[in-house]
Amino acid sequence: MKIGIIGSGVVAQTLGAKLIELGHDVVLGTRDPQKLDEKKNMTGTLREWLQQNQNKGKVVTFPQAAAHGELLINATAGGISVEALKIAGADNVGSKVLIDTANILDFSKGMPPRALASQDNCVAETIQTAFPNLKVVKCFNTIGAPVMVNPKAVGGGDHTIFVSGNDSVAKAQVSEILKSFGWTDILDLGDISSARGPEMYMAMWIRLWGATQTGMLNIKVVR
Amino acid sequence: MKIGIIGSGVVAQTLGAKLIELGHDVVLGTRDPQKLDEKKNMTGTLREWLQQNQNKGKVVTFPQAAAHGELLINATAGGISVEALKIAGADNVGSKVLIDTANILDFSKGMPPRALASQDNCVAETIQTAFPNLKVVKCFNTIGAPVMVNPKAVGGGDHTIFVSGNDSVAKAQVSEILKSFGWTDILDLGDISSARGPEMYMAMWIRLWGATQTGMLNIKVVR
Repeated sequence: MKIGIIGSGVVAQTLGAKLIELGHDVVLGTRDPQKLDEKKNMTGTLREWLQQNQNKGKVVTFPQAAAHGELLINATAGGISVEALKIAGADNVGSKVLIDTANILDFSKGMPPRALASQDNCVAETIQTAFPNLKVVKCFNTIGAPVMVNPKAVGGGDHTIFVSGNDSVAKAQVSEILKSFGWTDILDLGDISSARGPEMYMAMWIRLWGATQTGMLNIKVVR
Repeated sequence: MKIGIIGSGVVAQTLGAKLIELGHDVVLGTRDPQKLDEKKNMTGTLREWLQQNQNKGKVVTFPQAAAHGELLINATAGGISVEALKIAGADNVGSKVLIDTANILDFSKGMPPRALASQDNCVAETIQTAFPNLKVVKCFNTIGAPVMVNPKAVGGGDHTIFVSGNDSVAKAQVSEILKSFGWTDILDLGDISSARGPEMYMAMWIRLWGATQTGMLNIKVVR
């Protein structure tokens, strides 16, 4: 499938590489695709990413990424996601399925970062409101990038991932991608307002990360 | 041990009954101990609670409950916890260990209730700031009352409970109580600021409750 990822950081690179490995046609969108040699946080440069993926992926602009994808992924920081999608363009975004992976993290007051999601500040809902035709599915924001694409690396994969969104067909499509990554316990939380749960949970994840000293963790919903 | 519970709702009654069963000397504090026949949400009246526990527990005022306890438990609603503790009295509260179980839930906009915790609105931190000598330990707020005292009722007990607080000895004491309830995976999240994690998680718990249609659930931290 043609997949357009809005963003080029660690989440974009990690999801992009896995999707390429699975045979998808993936592009990463970034503000300036000429800047291939800037060091990205926690990962290498985009030039290195292209090489590691045998140049099967491409690095393009936000509008080109949105136009390319039959399925879109928002992998920008939550605070700038709507701006990035506006640059991508409402016409290019259209009424496609968009997987929103974003969290709103404030690093300005030192570590640990402050997850700023609240009942009135939810990235997925904000995107859905700004682009009413888009089929937004919240997913992936509750785990670190390495776990997103390799659930078996934590406790053999016996833990839970969440989807929220208004469109059942879109959630089913995202669930198929999750299964192709190895996810077995996929919990549908409900409509897009239910994304407040996983977004506010990020504050808990940050404390779990601090307490366990590893990002290779996740929660299993025992019921 | 002499335990004073500030509050008389479902959490107070449930924790109180279990602690009585384990041989502790328990009182519940309420605004007006004469009103034993008011129906409490989800549970019976306080008169029924007294009878069910063979009158081994007592229902007293907030100040009497705080004075009675060598260990205190805050089981009031998060929005009124500091007020309740002020009524209980700084002298009665002293420098005791206080287990804070509270969440700030807003039912004014219908169901599901809105968990209002944020980086700037954390009950446990607010209590600790208002009563600097108190040894506040955040615990129990991430699960429904029946699970608090009977972890084995969910998935055989293979899931996680959290403690946050500035005082290691106090957290160790609370952990002993947790073990006496059957808890086996007790995760220390750090100082009292780490209570923001479990308090913001309540927004996630509410969505898990909605998605699974049961409050008999908890999360296991897989790491």
